[in-house]
Amino acid sequence: MEMYRSAFLNYLNELQIEKEPKNLYTPVDYIMGLGGKRMRPVLVLMSCDLFGGDYMKAMEAALSVEMFHNFTLIHDDIMDRADLRRGHQTVHKKWDLNTGILSGDALMIMSNQRLENYSGETFKALISLYNKTALEVCEGQQLDVDFEEMTEVPLESYIQMISFKTAVLVGASLKMGAIISHSPPIDQDKIYGFGLNLGIAFQLQDDYLDTFGTVDFGKKIGGDILEGKKTFLYIKALELANETDREELLRLYGQEKDSETKIERVKQLFMKYGLHELLLSSIEEYTLKAIQDIDSLTIQDAKKQVFKDFGMALMNRKT
Amino acid sequence: MEMYRSAFLNYLNELQIEKEPKNLYTPVDYIMGLGGKRMRPVLVLMSCDLFGGDYMKAMEAALSVEMFHNFTLIHDDIMDRADLRRGHQTVHKKWDLNTGILSGDALMIMSNQRLENYSGETFKALISLYNKTALEVCEGQQLDVDFEEMTEVPLESYIQMISFKTAVLVGASLKMGAIISHSPPIDQDKIYGFGLNLGIAFQLQDDYLDTFGTVDFGKKIGGDILEGKKTFLYIKALELANETDREELLRLYGQEKDSETKIERVKQLFMKYGLHELLLSSIEEYTLKAIQDIDSLTIQDAKKQVFKDFGMALMNRKT
Repeated sequence: MEMYRSAFLNYLNELQIEKEPKNLYTPVDYIMGLGGKRMRPVLVLMSCDLFGGDYMKAMEAALSVEMFHNFTLIHDDIMDRADLRRGHQTVHKKWDLNTGILSGDALMIMSNQRLENYSGETFKALISLYNKTALEVCEGQQLDVDFEEMTEVPLESYIQMISFKTAVLVGASLKMGAIISHSPPIDQDKIYGFGLNLGIAFQLQDDYLDTFGTVDFGKKIGGDILEGKKTFLYIKALELANETDREELLRLYGQEKDSETKIERVKQLFMKYGLHELLLSSIEEYTLKAIQDIDSLTIQDAKKQVFKDFGMALMNRKT
Repeated sequence: MEMYRSAFLNYLNELQIEKEPKNLYTPVDYIMGLGGKRMRPVLVLMSCDLFGGDYMKAMEAALSVEMFHNFTLIHDDIMDRADLRRGHQTVHKKWDLNTGILSGDALMIMSNQRLENYSGETFKALISLYNKTALEVCEGQQLDVDFEEMTEVPLESYIQMISFKTAVLVGASLKMGAIISHSPPIDQDKIYGFGLNLGIAFQLQDDYLDTFGTVDFGKKIGGDILEGKKTFLYIKALELANETDREELLRLYGQEKDSETKIERVKQLFMKYGLHELLLSSIEEYTLKAIQDIDSLTIQDAKKQVFKDFGMALMNRKT
């Protein structure tokens, strides 16, 4: 993984966007330089490599995916009224609303443009996948916004939201690598499925760690409860709780952000219905589904193992 | 022209975007249904037809261009804090800021997706042209925003701004039709040049009509002066006026929106330096340049004449 990451970072470093007008491109440079794990581009490169391609040829697709991801960060931060991103000011905060909108638009177009470095059927397949995924990411963000106004969200809608908002881009990153290495369509679909299910598992684990995490993983424990977020735990609790507990949960969630008491009481209610275990088994289920997709790939076992190891490492994550 | 327009409108009518989530796609339907002259898609169809292609095959590209244009309207209206668009509420006003940002993003992706209906080299050429143009449109919008904060804008920067903000999309629309009809590259470039120069002429004519127009063409006469917009007239006036007139002009432009007196006095200053005539001759120059590009096309004279007639009709415009 580190090999791909450093190759990508080298590539990114050499790419200086020194275009005019500066007010459009400086914010683009800024967000691209804020760092992050660069997981999506790494997945593009790794996938291309493991499917027998030259991963340097996947570099422009990797860049495309990372640029697209950063475009979503700029616009999502506006929508979420977020002041900070990776410990730095968000684009619309450091500059202003108009800059956030317009630089985001430009970055989205630039990310699509990166795919022009491919040709023929590869190009067509990449653009189709890119557009389909990009639109799903918008739909996922819309569902997330919609859920804020809803009292009850069906679990399957929640799974769809996290799939669209984040997991499809994980799947698409892996599939791009497979496309560039000219893998058979069946492998392309399987590796997409791996990414999709792993992405869902990862997001569900986020839900788990936010509420039941013991180590600090960058967010305050109980943050989701304080913000009244409709996560897996909350959705299942409303579904399974008796009338009294249900009402208490709704009341607690309706309250203003207050204290540790709220977090503790909600956690108790979740645990009363065994939701911590239910969530863990759901995470395991999606992880297993992901791994199964790997088993049926038509590549060497040693290479399958690398994908599996990546998946397991991600799920036993430290951050 | 009417044939193309009604063919396009029929095509658009049959396209109902009934996708979920509704909060994402209803605003998309809304803006696409607000009407307008549909000039850009008509140009795609007309160009394909005159270059000997089947214009029904250009329909998806026409739709792509119209969708892209409407995406820019949604986001520009947010940036300009505009409440009305074509006599109806703007998207961010009818819904909210987040809806405007996200529906705009979705519409941009959808517009790119429309080009997936083409294949091979045609597809590649269309996507490359689309992305290049889209990015230039963003750059044009950024220049426009930047100019608001500047006291003096060089005329060539102003021409670049109007080129990028509007004219390149006119050129690209015509070029798309030429690409789809498999015209020789030289013709593709010439028809792009025609659209670009005609687009610049059209925008400069907007400047002229806004200040010296006698008939109402949808905008208040003198609107640019009241808003202190840095148009061709203002830019040239600052360049040519003597010190006293220059200072008066700067002072007048710095004033709050007030009255007819301001409009009249600025007009007098413009006319003192013959700027109404200078602007008219600049419009004629760009129109002529556009027409010259038509002369060198490799198509029949009768077809050249249709392009020319269109150009002349546009410039002797009623709206």
